[in-house]
Amino acid sequence: MSDETTALDETVLLERDGDIAVLRLHRPDRLNAFTNEMCERVIELMDECDADDGIRAVVVTGTGRAFCAGADLGGGGDTFVLENDPDTGGAPADQGGRVALRFYRSTKPVIAAVNGPAAGVGVTMTLPADVRIASDTARFGFVFVRRGIVPEACSSWFLPRVVGIATALRWTLGGKMVSAEEALAGGLVSEIVPADRVLARAIEVAREMTEGTAPVSVALTRQLMWRMLGAESPEVAHRADSLAVYLRGTSGDAHEGVESFLEKRAPEFPDRISAGLPDLFGDSE
Amino acid sequence: MSDETTALDETVLLERDGDIAVLRLHRPDRLNAFTNEMCERVIELMDECDADDGIRAVVVTGTGRAFCAGADLGGGGDTFVLENDPDTGGAPADQGGRVALRFYRSTKPVIAAVNGPAAGVGVTMTLPADVRIASDTARFGFVFVRRGIVPEACSSWFLPRVVGIATALRWTLGGKMVSAEEALAGGLVSEIVPADRVLARAIEVAREMTEGTAPVSVALTRQLMWRMLGAESPEVAHRADSLAVYLRGTSGDAHEGVESFLEKRAPEFPDRISAGLPDLFGDSE
Amino acid sequence: MSDETTALDETVLLERDGDIAVLRLHRPDRLNAFTNEMCERVIELMDECDADDGIRAVVVTGTGRAFCAGADLGGGGDTFVLENDPDTGGAPADQGGRVALRFYRSTKPVIAAVNGPAAGVGVTMTLPADVRIASDTARFGFVFVRRGIVPEACSSWFLPRVVGIATALRWTLGGKMVSAEEALAGGLVSEIVPADRVLARAIEVAREMTEGTAPVSVALTRQLMWRMLGAESPEVAHRADSLAVYLRGTSGDAHEGVESFLEKRAPEFPDRISAGLPDLFGDSE
Repeated sequence: MSDETTALDETVLLERDGDIAVLRLHRPDRLNAFTNEMCERVIELMDECDADDGIRAVVVTGTGRAFCAGADLGGGGDTFVLENDPDTGGAPADQGGRVALRFYRSTKPVIAAVNGPAAGVGVTMTLPADVRIASDTARFGFVFVRRGIVPEACSSWFLPRVVGIATALRWTLGGKMVSAEEALAGGLVSEIVPADRVLARAIEVAREMTEGTAPVSVALTRQLMWRMLGAESPEVAHRADSLAVYLRGTSGDAHEGVESFLEKRAPEFPDRISAGLPDLFGDSE
Repeated sequence: MSDETTALDETVLLERDGDIAVLRLHRPDRLNAFTNEMCERVIELMDECDADDGIRAVVVTGTGRAFCAGADLGGGGDTFVLENDPDTGGAPADQGGRVALRFYRSTKPVIAAVNGPAAGVGVTMTLPADVRIASDTARFGFVFVRRGIVPEACSSWFLPRVVGIATALRWTLGGKMVSAEEALAGGLVSEIVPADRVLARAIEVAREMTEGTAPVSVALTRQLMWRMLGAESPEVAHRADSLAVYLRGTSGDAHEGVESFLEKRAPEFPDRISAGLPDLFGDSE
Repeated sequence: MSDETTALDETVLLERDGDIAVLRLHRPDRLNAFTNEMCERVIELMDECDADDGIRAVVVTGTGRAFCAGADLGGGGDTFVLENDPDTGGAPADQGGRVALRFYRSTKPVIAAVNGPAAGVGVTMTLPADVRIASDTARFGFVFVRRGIVPEACSSWFLPRVVGIATALRWTLGGKMVSAEEALAGGLVSEIVPADRVLARAIEVAREMTEGTAPVSVALTRQLMWRMLGAESPEVAHRADSLAVYLRGTSGDAHEGVESFLEKRAPEFPDRISAGLPDLFGDSE
């Protein structure tokens, strides 16, 4: 299904299916266990996806029978011993968090196609995806407290917002291995499909978000929904909305969106993400 | 069922059923498509409802087969082009947001009786209602990204809190038309009833919140629940609660509430909203 | 099932079942109606539980057929009249809130075994528990607005986060008595069991969170999940995570957690909560 592969010797591959990018964790002999190199590579490839107007959405999946087995435990008992960063004098940035924040900041929808077991950072990295689709072979291991560590990758922010605080506490305090069925019941995944269908189904869902929709509108909507999820009050959203409605209202996209609707034809939206997105939240101040 | 109508030539009507107000979007020939005039009128009528102790709850519905078709697209491709406000030098306030914030700030419960299709601002304006009841003919159009615009009316704050972030993203990034059944499954509406029953059912639900309950307690509870939904920590709620418990504890309402309970009779609460509500949140500082 | 009882003449008892503490509201002749003395006693006993490394989790239940009937209305209409605190010149701290915040700040998981009816503070005090299990005889009375008061105990912060804002509004604005079945459907409780099984089942669930898990990891995970539930952005979680991952990564617990996993044996975690927990959130600054 892919018509392009960025590199074959990489631990993370970027493939294409038309305007959908497929970002593939690719260490199948290690069940795609996560390394620092993979962290850097995911961030680089997401930067490429954001910069390329020919890509409308990103599907994240794994090669082989696992999605991601979590941190590579090849270091044994010292696996989680980190170098202190001499420049900061403090704790270095959690690598899982860097990946999670990169997905969170994506200007394109992110769909996780969880093709098999996902444990530790393998599951927490998927929480900022917009949709998670599970293979019937998927399991989700919130096993941190069984390894003497804690849930990372900003999962204390994302997980209770995705599945509710009661389920989040039950899974993480219990160090649970969650089945695909439990994940569906808890709202972690939107559907379960056979293992050989999970990538194709994720691409179908990605197309729902790309066909007939304006790329800049999708990017701003994604920002608004995720960012206002933590906002103190609807008044904060009202300020961002008012600016967004004003700027989008005068855009070529809005003109085309209304005209095509009134003329009962498919829209052809002119605006491109690469031309820059407005700062709706005053971040650059 | 109404025993009073404020005006027959208005685009929004205020009717009464005992102590329940019915606020009715009333441009049936345009499927109640939303205009700036309707925005101002809804705000005025909500002010009237708040000021009138004889009104205990507000039901919002539409005349005819639709609830509200969204913004009136009579302006064609320039529909969403707004006048910049010369006084502010910035973006003018989103009209949908003004309506949403007015419902949010209501001192009385707000029940949306969604009697038919609701699209765009037609659905986002209902999100600050306390309850949404759907006709079996209702559909909910989160179509913004298909028109080149973005979800407004503070919906990026309200929608993920009502239906969860995963569902909110799926509906808004996909520009989805959501059926009544999907809305029920997603938690957007609390129940589906036949079209000819939706208003009567909304009034029944409003009565659950008004019979045997203290108006000032209901108003403060509504404020506490909505406002603390965005608060950083339970300690913020503890400060507001401590003040509310203290002030309500010494009130005639609390005295009557306990005495009537111990005497197994219906309460007659003396306190009135029009006498003023305490500032639980330090807003006036 | 208990092998120790702290005191028999107390209004709240602390019992033990191995490393699980059972905190028991104990005024069965008054349906465990809540008093200021009970508030102080719960706080003291929770302090004892936190200080004792031999306790891994706390189950909260009631003696007799009720869990807690709410505030003791023995004071009649003046029940909720509070002494103003001359030192603060303001409202005294809500007693329900003090109990709720104490459960919230627990370093051990808290499981509520709701053995029968719970009303008012009887239900709101359980909201910061990590799990609520209902007896089939349980009912949950969100009756505040029927007594002329308001929901307290930080419930405006906790309730919408546990059951969603729509359900929270429906229950509190309506002053509802919620059945065990409605509580299960709404997500307030995780399961319903026969009355004579509710305590045993709560202890089983507590064991899921204590067997094979690192006490310090569980304490920090509990803090992260609850605290980040109110955080403005995932970046706030990323800062706390990075510190937690760094500190835990170098711990004896992490070493043992990985080694025991690789050796396929049960872990024996060396770290103890009594040695102090790191400040992940900069509170002590």
